[in-house]
Amino acid sequence: MALSARRRRAVQAARSAGRSAGVDALLITHLPDVRWLSGFTGSNAALLLTVPKSRPAKAVLFTDGRYTAQAKAETPGTRVVIAQKNAALAACEWLVEAKIRRCGFDDDNTTVASLKQMRTAIPKKRRAMLQPVGALVSELRWVKDADEIAKMRRAAALGCQLFEEILGLMEPGMTENAVAADLEYRARLAGAEAMSFPTIVASGERSALPHGKASAAKLPRRGFVTLDFGVVLDGYCSDMTRTVQMGRASDEERAVYDAVLAAQEAGVAAVRSGVTGGEVDEAGRAVLRTAKLDKWFTHSTGHGVGLEIHEGPRLGAKQKQKLEPGMVVTIEPGVYMPGRFGVRIEDMVLVTASGGEILTPCTKAWIEL
Amino acid sequence: MALSARRRRAVQAARSAGRSAGVDALLITHLPDVRWLSGFTGSNAALLLTVPKSRPAKAVLFTDGRYTAQAKAETPGTRVVIAQKNAALAACEWLVEAKIRRCGFDDDNTTVASLKQMRTAIPKKRRAMLQPVGALVSELRWVKDADEIAKMRRAAALGCQLFEEILGLMEPGMTENAVAADLEYRARLAGAEAMSFPTIVASGERSALPHGKASAAKLPRRGFVTLDFGVVLDGYCSDMTRTVQMGRASDEERAVYDAVLAAQEAGVAAVRSGVTGGEVDEAGRAVLRTAKLDKWFTHSTGHGVGLEIHEGPRLGAKQKQKLEPGMVVTIEPGVYMPGRFGVRIEDMVLVTASGGEILTPCTKAWIEL
Repeated sequence: MALSARRRRAVQAARSAGRSAGVDALLITHLPDVRWLSGFTGSNAALLLTVPKSRPAKAVLFTDGRYTAQAKAETPGTRVVIAQKNAALAACEWLVEAKIRRCGFDDDNTTVASLKQMRTAIPKKRRAMLQPVGALVSELRWVKDADEIAKMRRAAALGCQLFEEILGLMEPGMTENAVAADLEYRARLAGAEAMSFPTIVASGERSALPHGKASAAKLPRRGFVTLDFGVVLDGYCSDMTRTVQMGRASDEERAVYDAVLAAQEAGVAAVRSGVTGGEVDEAGRAVLRTAKLDKWFTHSTGHGVGLEIHEGPRLGAKQKQKLEPGMVVTIEPGVYMPGRFGVRIEDMVLVTASGGEILTPCTKAWIEL
Repeated sequence: MALSARRRRAVQAARSAGRSAGVDALLITHLPDVRWLSGFTGSNAALLLTVPKSRPAKAVLFTDGRYTAQAKAETPGTRVVIAQKNAALAACEWLVEAKIRRCGFDDDNTTVASLKQMRTAIPKKRRAMLQPVGALVSELRWVKDADEIAKMRRAAALGCQLFEEILGLMEPGMTENAVAADLEYRARLAGAEAMSFPTIVASGERSALPHGKASAAKLPRRGFVTLDFGVVLDGYCSDMTRTVQMGRASDEERAVYDAVLAAQEAGVAAVRSGVTGGEVDEAGRAVLRTAKLDKWFTHSTGHGVGLEIHEGPRLGAKQKQKLEPGMVVTIEPGVYMPGRFGVRIEDMVLVTASGGEILTPCTKAWIEL
């Protein structure tokens, strides 16, 4: 069985990037990159791709004995080597035998100690063969193809469905943990492999914590509840946030919600191919500045999402990276008033040539439960 | 509010290790280490500890604006700096201003690119101040104190309780995902913050996959189901595996189960202060060798567990690290016959001066559902 068309395109893109970086092989050890290029989903792997000028690339996957059957099943068209030692070390020995001159490695995802150890597998005179090339493969993953976008659309749609289901269950006195439990249970039954990250259910004063993981706190009779969660479906992560009001809001709470919503919509409206991450960030931040709430917006506007929950590009102040069609980013401004309350609203947005398409088909209208 | 007695002991141990390593400060960026020393549970942090010879150590925690309130609440006795930039970079600038001469960093958990970036924050003449000291703090965490052991005991007990509950629900035709969903739902309601790792429910032929994450496969009328899962309770991970038979087993299946159980018990019996990881591994492996099953035991016997699901010491062939009282390790031999079936049995074991105490209070007797 051969590589799928999608994997073949990914491998070609990696080889091409490797050639531009001036290496004749790439050592890929970051697991999402390994999965993207080979299909392997195990927890220990190193993938070697040769980057010859003409012949087809060789692809060798190194893993360990726990994954013998799984690696063969998941990586048609890739040679699998079951290593007795560290996978990256085994890959380095292979590089030496194959007489590779310059092999790119991912210095963004290789520890100082690993690199030192890898070098010991290479004769002294040839140690310069390992060349840092940054997160070259991860950056290729920032732009999604049609198949990946379809998967992300499904993951985002499942997230929305779960949000709507869970709304019907939330009532004062229920713990945040119980809300998260129910949400995650439904996610599993609907086919999610995992949650994208620890589920955030932050109620009452806790809504002022931008990363308020679900706790034993009980939902209040009145006050905000922020739900920020994602599902992993077929490897791809979703990410969404909604903030709902448990009772009757104060005028100030309503005003803050409306301002965050306006900021979020301005961020979404700013998304299109060619604009920078910094410009998208500023679009929403400016709305909060006008409302004199910007000092409570203490994080950046968003991030790329895909096989990893946090990928590039980053959408923060001064980010110069330009958006490209096929990128999927989050737009998630928030306002957090310590000890009082907070509001965050987040969608996943697909970058297109003409703008941004929201992948999160779920109302952002004001909700009082 | 001051540091708790436990945190104070941990910080003292880290300072002492730092002094032995010849540095006058430690830069701690591995999040479980940061949590262990400071109590901070956020997802972005760098902790600096000075290591003076006489005066009390300074402790400064660098994080970002998402964690302003949380960091202050979680880290009494620690100064918190909200950095506009990367936390480790901000820490390096602080090092320069504080005129630190030699600062140890964790080369096992620092990427090549991060180190390069950190060095840019330090004037050229002083860049040698950053000295690799390995996973110095993580290694201190291998030995648990009474408070940590109590937490791990509770986490392990919850795992056992969930296993017993879930047994009552499993029946042919139910998907592995549904089993995992129910298990994880109950875990959450019982107070677990998260699962320790993606839940493994591997049924029928899939039981031959050592890492068979729960899938859409249905439980068979007969055949093994391996359940390998853990809960995170108060930060500490549990880890357990049981293999049960859905129907009537063949003689061979029963013989393999009995051999794996004998190997697991031999491994547990080998645990005591002073023996090496390799000796524990060999104890169980020898049992499988006698049964002519060792070629199907394709991984190592176990690993340390604590704030992280995989810590040291490693219990594998030739591991020379000696066990010490207070370490908590898994003992988890398995036999995997590709395309046919597999069996794994795993307990968490506390190392004591005289032996090993099983922390997983759950039967390993043969179960036919």
